Amino acid sequence: MKVDGRHFRSIWLEADGWSVGAIDQRKLPHEFVVAALTTCDEAADAIRSMLVRGAPLIGAAAAYGMALAMRDDRSEVGIEHAYDMLFATRPTAINLKWALDEMRAMLRRLPPSARLDAAYARAADIAEQDITINEGIAKNGFALLEAFAARKPPGMPVNVLTHCNAGWLATVDWGTATAPIYLAHDRGVGVHVWVDETRPRNQGAALTAWELGHHGVPHTVIPDNTGGHLMQHGLVDLVIVGTDRVAANGDVCNKIGTYLKALAAKDNGVPFYVALPSPTIDFAVTDGVSKIPIEQRGAEEVTHMTGRTADGRIETVRIVPENSPVANYAFDVTPARLVTGLITERGVLKADPSSLATAFPERIAAAAE
Amino acid sequence: MKVDGRHFRSIWLEADGWSVGAIDQRKLPHEFVVAALTTCDEAADAIRSMLVRGAPLIGAAAAYGMALAMRDDRSEVGIEHAYDMLFATRPTAINLKWALDEMRAMLRRLPPSARLDAAYARAADIAEQDITINEGIAKNGFALLEAFAARKPPGMPVNVLTHCNAGWLATVDWGTATAPIYLAHDRGVGVHVWVDETRPRNQGAALTAWELGHHGVPHTVIPDNTGGHLMQHGLVDLVIVGTDRVAANGDVCNKIGTYLKALAAKDNGVPFYVALPSPTIDFAVTDGVSKIPIEQRGAEEVTHMTGRTADGRIETVRIVPENSPVANYAFDVTPARLVTGLITERGVLKADPSSLATAFPERIAAAAE
Repeated sequence: MKVDGRHFRSIWLEADGWSVGAIDQRKLPHEFVVAALTTCDEAADAIRSMLVRGAPLIGAAAAYGMALAMRDDRSEVGIEHAYDMLFATRPTAINLKWALDEMRAMLRRLPPSARLDAAYARAADIAEQDITINEGIAKNGFALLEAFAARKPPGMPVNVLTHCNAGWLATVDWGTATAPIYLAHDRGVGVHVWVDETRPRNQGAALTAWELGHHGVPHTVIPDNTGGHLMQHGLVDLVIVGTDRVAANGDVCNKIGTYLKALAAKDNGVPFYVALPSPTIDFAVTDGVSKIPIEQRGAEEVTHMTGRTADGRIETVRIVPENSPVANYAFDVTPARLVTGLITERGVLKADPSSLATAFPERIAAAAE
Repeated sequence: MKVDGRHFRSIWLEADGWSVGAIDQRKLPHEFVVAALTTCDEAADAIRSMLVRGAPLIGAAAAYGMALAMRDDRSEVGIEHAYDMLFATRPTAINLKWALDEMRAMLRRLPPSARLDAAYARAADIAEQDITINEGIAKNGFALLEAFAARKPPGMPVNVLTHCNAGWLATVDWGTATAPIYLAHDRGVGVHVWVDETRPRNQGAALTAWELGHHGVPHTVIPDNTGGHLMQHGLVDLVIVGTDRVAANGDVCNKIGTYLKALAAKDNGVPFYVALPSPTIDFAVTDGVSKIPIEQRGAEEVTHMTGRTADGRIETVRIVPENSPVANYAFDVTPARLVTGLITERGVLKADPSSLATAFPERIAAAAE
């Protein structure tokens, strides 16, 4: 998508043919800085420090990290060392493990002399594969947005509410929840996005607003408390969010607060969609609400806030009293009964076990093995 | 309630018998500063700048402002001038107008020589009256909390979730939503409070957490996104919030985001209570959801955040991209169907037109005149 009128991906191979460029997302929305990753160490640091974040992007960054490692040591030991270093950065990230497993299995099958070129080629594949999936989501979600647009008075945009950042910055390009929105905007279908701030990490205010703004998509940032009021007053046509994991029964695990928006959507007859690449479906989990473990993160994400002062300094300030305890649940699970549809690269599916099983028979077969 | 072990009200007459002390709430939770209000001008400034805030406290502050004005000019002109200056500070605050009307009507009936003493006496009455009402709420809500406590395993506290600051800082003492909590805590009934941060102004994180902490009530600050997840997992026994206005049909206008919590409570069978002094009921509004106008406030409340740096400086930082528009709806309306009960000084009432009319026949009679 675009930044200052120029097309960018969140990660790319530089023109030198070996170093890797990535947008330093820790500095957004205040500064646009491109980082150069030149070693496996630097790639691992980038993932650990959240210079890059978002499940699909972490996978691509790890794959490029393995490629960079092959420049220094193409031995079995080098492969294992790079795998371990990269895996330790975010051990619960499913895409990270998937990408590393892919890279390691492929590299082990090759003689050391072939490993460098193959690693770069496979890393590029992994990045392209993410884009292809997101283009599928864009296309399927676009049909939905077009239908909403057809029911709006001429000149009125379709109002989409989104939560957190399931945007192109979380992927290699397009994003998941944002993919249909970017496609609609590019094709001249009017869309306006209500962007939830998304406390405590503010990914909506910091990242989604930034990327929509740079691509020219009309949007408005709102506190997370606002969605219910907007839906009650007809100001939201549909909700589209991303997800970290979908259970086999259609329950959706996503950033904390998603469940509250789904309840408001249900109460006001607003369709609630979840956009996802199909690898996000976990057919091994049969009940999302009771079975998906919810990560608790550090208190400082709630107690402190970082931003830019009027004179341009980046400062971190405490906003909670010193002695008050804090809880920081990172995700919640929205029951399938509140989900209107799952926008995947294979179409818009109902959030129920049989629809998911029918759409992905090969996954069911693999799970049964 | 207590601050550093000493009992405080939010506003009081100083020992000199004429100047007025108030806690400077703009500096909380980072600094505890007592302001001295010595003129009507200073009282007006205190209300305007939100040194004092919260409907009942604003009423008491305005009443003391009229008393301070009488020290300088006890004429008719002096009364009108003070009234106008104080009224202009927060013209939509219902308690402000009520307190000023009370003071003006009383002062006009008296000869100038009697006005100074009478003004101080009536201001003290208005403050005491707020405390009396809140003690009624405390008593009625306490019975509820005791019943919840009786159903908990021994040693387990009753978990109450609250939103925004309907605490003693918003009133003269006790608060509304917090009144039953303080009484339960003082009487040894174990309570633990989940405190919603309450974006965008952070009254929960900044004020409710501060006052609960200083009084010694166990509590945990959470992002506004968290309540649904907690209720889904049995971690909330009941919700108690305050309100800015209750319609005759029981619809509840309160800080933006209250409606989302009420939906989550309903979805999980968690009782949802609203604590209110009866003057908050507006019998002239028959339908809250469609008829209560919702104030939109400045963007900077969403785009900027103020807090304390590690080295003790108070800084304001921008957290939203420069060019992203922002919406800031201050309140939402929770439909009566989601409200389990209204905790008033006359008992815990059902949120429906006939229960309200039966409990306050004199208000219905007055509205019909």
